[in-house]
Order: sequence, then C-alpha cells, then structure tokens
Amino acid sequence: MLDWEKIFATRSVRMRASEIRELLKLLDRHDIISFAGGIPDPALFPNEEFQSVYSEIFSGPTVSAALQYSVSEGYLPLRRWLSDEMAKIGITAGPENIFITSGSQQGLDYIGKLFLSPNDTALVTWPTYLGALQAFNAYEPKYDQLTLNGNRTPDSYRAAASDAGGSVKFAYLSADFSNPTGETVDREGRERLLDLAAELDIAIIEDAAYQSLRYDGEAIPPILAIELARNGGDIEKTRTIYSGSFSKTLAPGLRVGFTVANSQVIRKLVLMKQAADLHSSTINQMAISLVAERGFDKQVEKIKAVYSHRRDCMLAALEKYMPEGVHWTKPEGGMFIWLTLPKGMDGAELLAKSLETAKVAFVPGKAFFADGSGANTLRMSFSCANDQMIEDGISRLGTLIRGETAA
Amino acid sequence: MLDWEKIFATRSVRMRASEIRELLKLLDRHDIISFAGGIPDPALFPNEEFQSVYSEIFSGPTVSAALQYSVSEGYLPLRRWLSDEMAKIGITAGPENIFITSGSQQGLDYIGKLFLSPNDTALVTWPTYLGALQAFNAYEPKYDQLTLNGNRTPDSYRAAASDAGGSVKFAYLSADFSNPTGETVDREGRERLLDLAAELDIAIIEDAAYQSLRYDGEAIPPILAIELARNGGDIEKTRTIYSGSFSKTLAPGLRVGFTVANSQVIRKLVLMKQAADLHSSTINQMAISLVAERGFDKQVEKIKAVYSHRRDCMLAALEKYMPEGVHWTKPEGGMFIWLTLPKGMDGAELLAKSLETAKVAFVPGKAFFADGSGANTLRMSFSCANDQMIEDGISRLGTLIRGETAA
Repeated sequence: MLDWEKIFATRSVRMRASEIRELLKLLDRHDIISFAGGIPDPALFPNEEFQSVYSEIFSGPTVSAALQYSVSEGYLPLRRWLSDEMAKIGITAGPENIFITSGSQQGLDYIGKLFLSPNDTALVTWPTYLGALQAFNAYEPKYDQLTLNGNRTPDSYRAAASDAGGSVKFAYLSADFSNPTGETVDREGRERLLDLAAELDIAIIEDAAYQSLRYDGEAIPPILAIELARNGGDIEKTRTIYSGSFSKTLAPGLRVGFTVANSQVIRKLVLMKQAADLHSSTINQMAISLVAERGFDKQVEKIKAVYSHRRDCMLAALEKYMPEGVHWTKPEGGMFIWLTLPKGMDGAELLAKSLETAKVAFVPGKAFFADGSGANTLRMSFSCANDQMIEDGISRLGTLIRGETAA
Repeated sequence: MLDWEKIFATRSVRMRASEIRELLKLLDRHDIISFAGGIPDPALFPNEEFQSVYSEIFSGPTVSAALQYSVSEGYLPLRRWLSDEMAKIGITAGPENIFITSGSQQGLDYIGKLFLSPNDTALVTWPTYLGALQAFNAYEPKYDQLTLNGNRTPDSYRAAASDAGGSVKFAYLSADFSNPTGETVDREGRERLLDLAAELDIAIIEDAAYQSLRYDGEAIPPILAIELARNGGDIEKTRTIYSGSFSKTLAPGLRVGFTVANSQVIRKLVLMKQAADLHSSTINQMAISLVAERGFDKQVEKIKAVYSHRRDCMLAALEKYMPEGVHWTKPEGGMFIWLTLPKGMDGAELLAKSLETAKVAFVPGKAFFADGSGANTLRMSFSCANDQMIEDGISRLGTLIRGETAA
C-alpha cells in the first residue's frame, strides 16, 4: 500500500484544517447562540433579483454562452461594470486591469502563488484574516508583523526577511472593518503604508472584502486610490493590488470575486487561472453582472441598515454586560467586533466553558495571529444575530467572564 | 516604479499563454472552418433541464443554501449521486472518497500542488493533454515519457528522476479517447500501468474527462476499477486518483468537476481547496446534481448520437481526401482525431498556410509534447462541425497537404 506521506510535496505537509471552520461545524446546535461565523445573513440575499436574472439568461440569446467555456480574465460586461464602480471610489481601472476570480479567496491564493517563493516574507498585521494566512501558507512563506506606527524601519524588515532566507514580497492588509478586528486604517496609516512599500519596493495587497459596508464615519479612500492620486492616476505605475468580493454584498454561493491591479500583474494572474481552473463560472458571472448593474447600491443599502443596527445592539450589550478589564473595538462597518480579555485569560478555554455553561459561541483570537500570540482575544460576529440573541448572548457571556475574572 | 519581475516567485516565470488558446482567439473568423477547438457543441447543452432546475432552486426551500457559503468537499447530494454512478463502472467509492472541484482542471492543479516539489518527475504520455502540463508546470516538475510497451524499466524512471533532482511522483494519463489523440489504452496497458506504478510506488492520475463518450467498441474498466478489482474492492488501498468532469456531458460553464480517490488524498485536497477558493459554486453544484439525477444517461445518449456521426463523417472524409503518407487515429469515442503528417512536414507551418489558402484550422501537435517533439502531428476536433463543414474542410486540407507532399 502506497505511503502517501512519502510522495506528497513538502508544501502539502503544512496544510491543516482551520480551527475556525472545524469549530463552526460543531456549532450547528440549536441551544447555542453563535457569534462565531463570519458569514452574511442569508435572509438578506437578493433572491428575487437572482431568480429573475437566471430566468432571463435561460430565456435569452446568451444561454449557450452562459453554459460554455469562457475566457480566463472574466466576463467582460462584469469587468466593465466594475471599472465604473471603481471610478466612483477613486480607482481608475479599465477592464484590462480587472480580473474575475472564484471568490476573492482565490485572488489571495493566486497572489501567494505569484509572489511567494519558499521562505519569502509576507507582512501581515497581528491579527489578520485567517483565510489569507491559509492561502499564503501553501507557498511556504515567513510572516513578519506589519505595523504602521513607525516602530519598524524598512531596514529591519529587510534584515529579518533576509535572515529568514528570502525577501519581503508584499504587505497584506484589510484596511476597512477588517476581519477579525473590525478596525479601519486611517488615511495617515494608508499613506505610511504606501511610503513603507515604496521604500521596501514591494507590493501592497489591499483586501477590500468589507469596504462597501460602512455604517457611519467618513469613507477613507482605498489605498489603491491614494496611490493613484499620488502618481497622477496611472494604474500601470501602482504597486497596490486591490482584492474585492461580492460575497458580503450580493451572495457568496456563486463564488465571484475580483482583483484590480496594473495590467502586468493582471496578465500573470490570468495565465495562472488558465492553468489552474480555466475560468470562473460563466453563468454566475453573468448573473452577478446583471444583478449588480440593476441594483447593487440598493442591495448594499438594505444590508447596511440591518447590520449597522446589529452592530449597535452588540456594542450596547457589551457596554451593559462586560466587566471591567474587557475591551473591544467600535467598528464603523463590516461584521466583526474584537474583544480583548484581561491578560492571562485564554479565549480558547473561555470558549470551551462558554459552550458548556453560557451556551454562546465566538472565535478565539489566537488563530488570527501568524505568530501564535493573541490568546486573550476573541472575535464576535454580529451579521447573523438578531436583537434578542445579542442581548441574551452577550449578557450570558458577560456573566461567565465576570466569574472568570473574579476567580 | 516597482519592477514586478523582481518580486514574482520563481515559479511564476514559467507561466506563458497557451499557444492553443491564443490560436483559438484568432479563429473567430467566419471564412475559416475550424477543427481546432476542443469544446462541446453548445447546441447539445441541456438548456431546458438547467432552466427548470435553477427555477426550482429559487422557488424552493434551499435557495438560501444555494446562495450561501458551503463546505469545501462539495455538495453532499452530488457526491452521493456520483458514488452511485461510480459503482456502475466498477468503482466502489463513498461520498468521503469524492471531492467536487471547479472543473476537472482544478483537480489537476491541486494534484500538481499536492505531489510535486520542484524537480520532481511526472510521467506523462507523449503527447498528453496540454491543460495537464499547464497545471503541473506551476509546481516546476520535470517530465518523463510514460510508455506502456515495456521499453522502460522502473529503474530507468527512478534513475532519470533522481538525475533531474527529485523523484517520480505520479503517472498521468487519459486512458479513454484521450485529448489530443482520441486513443484508448487497452486493458493490458492499464494492467501494465498498475504494475509499473506499484513497482515505482507512485500514484496514478486517471483523467476520465471523455470516458462517458464511447461510441462503439467494448468499454474497458477504468484504471481505478481494475485496481479495486485487484485488491478486493477497498478504495482506501488504491493508488489511482480518478479525475472526472461534467464539462463534456452536461456543460462546462458551470465549472463542476470531481476527483475520486482514497480518503487520505481526498482530505488533503479538501484542505487545499479550503485555503485556495473555499468551495465550488453552491448553486451550480445543486443544479448539476438535479440535472444529473434526472437525466444524465439520456443526455449522454443524445451527445453520443451526434458526436459519433461527426466522427464517422470525419474518418470517411480523411479516407477520401488525405494523400498517402498521412496517418490518423480511429477513436472509439471522445472529440478528437490525431493526424501524423509525413516526416519533415511541420504542423505549425501547415496551419499558417491552411489559414491563408485552405481556410481550415486545427491545432499543431507540438504543444502536446512535454519534450517539444511531435512537429509533424496535428489535432482535429469533430465535436462542433457539421457534415458539410467536415466534407469541405477535410477536402480542402487534403488538397493542401497533397500539394505540400508533392512539393
């Protein structure tokens, strides 16, 4: 019998199940109030709009094209619509600068594949999006902590990367209402990041998965828009690669995301996709394109109204029920609030107890740290919880934590 | 301005546009009869069946699930249906042995990623499916020629792989009506392949993309079925990884393919997908599942009737119009016929002339050879051509080749 471990590639040894996704599988219990999942509320999907466009596609002249092979770069009308959308947020990008992926996760995977040789360094925030770490891990990088407070010099990054056996290739971050913290990088931080990237001569990967979901405060231009403003609007001179998603606004089940960048990078990504899965689902790209053209803004407004209310509820409940020594972020958008427990308290241990007694689920924060720190943090999602669930859940969790701090 | 080439990973340098796909883009000219594309005839897609199931999904209780995130291993009812289908061709595989991919191309990419460290060797036939070479190339392997005629000893493969700086990881082949040759590996050849793989202790990748499309002759059991028969039916002891597709039977535009293997391999592939693109489109998996359950066999019969007639026409036309010295395969299924031109004649040069004078397109065979040989070969597809196109196209091509041989 074949000893598979013997013939797997070195890189495949590093794959392991995400603790979070394993956790979520355990949470399908009706007696648990879950703030763990980071998924959109299915009650907000534009079902009728999708129903109508799929029906239209099948009744129209494009049905054969919808079911046939198509081009690796993505459905042109969708790339054109995105080009117009990008212009509205200060990003001048033609269809040739836009690449459709099977979810923005695929864009992150391809970016890892495009840039990372083993032992190269990726700069990520502590904490960062776990899915990005998982995507990049396949290419065997090292991670160094991206900080924008001036604590690290470009030389210190260069030296650390060289010690690790490679060089710094990119800085990855979610600048708006990030998963997991819900925090936003301010304009000044974005400018500093652009300066740092220029000094290191590396790419910036801007994960904009939650960018459309701002509930209050003033919108900060995307990093790519700021870079474009600096260089006179020529995307061919930019180093920022913008990763976008329809999963939080329209629906994740169609697997349609996109990447916006200078055409040199886009051409490489297209070749990569051609070799890796040919193209994203033709019919789904058409459906997303039609639904987006006809009512993207309206759909986003609908979602924002619901999620901002849930965020408000959760923030109010945290204020009401959490004991002293617990701190949390106050996100201006997105789906997540990030809690910091008193030092020495462990999020994973708390979860184990919480599932038994408080019957509340959340995600221990440690998984989001590339260096394994962050034991006393946790991620709470409000996207799928109603008022009562939030009130009850946070109240019960507050009682549990209070007991723990007293102990 | 960032010098991107400087920060791309080593592996990304190897990506280049497929000559074939570039060629196909040039062929959208109405005055050209094209036998170049390897795509299914869109007139045969089960449009009405798809229309009805998408409509059903949107009217039913599963609409939220259809639009939501789902599991990386794939939609369970589809894996169950596949499990039953596999049993019909001698493959005993439970849902835990079946993994849904975004087209079978993605399965090949993941297999490359799972097994190939740089400089490892993949055994492939000369010629082989170009898409497989493109998928594997991303992981920087070497190729050695898979022959089943006994000309090569296991030791010679081992030695060559070791000289190349790695070891042999798998043998990849399309055993039924392969792309590009249309040829089928007989039972004896499959048995020899299993023996060779056992001696080398490597995996076998069985690309079954065309396996359902047999027009005549007796079906030969899949390699995985033969291996299962050898070991008493325990898929957990098999080394063959079976790669399947719905693109040639139902429709490619939904991007749904599948991989069947022992669960140790499946679990690794699932983790890989979780990191790479989370999961394949939920709604499309549901649609494929419903259409397949209700009428897969009928759909396959419909396609086979049309394609077998086209194959007959093309074989008859070749017989009628090709000059002496030109040879071709007589496929029992699939979409392709493979021509060998007289020695010294070059397929790429012939194509250039043919586009000018005969106005007939085909694919020069060289791209399908990992070692760059095969200049005097070409691939002809009959899947999208009607009787008149075949008669006219082959007649004109025959005249051109006759002129070339006389010259």
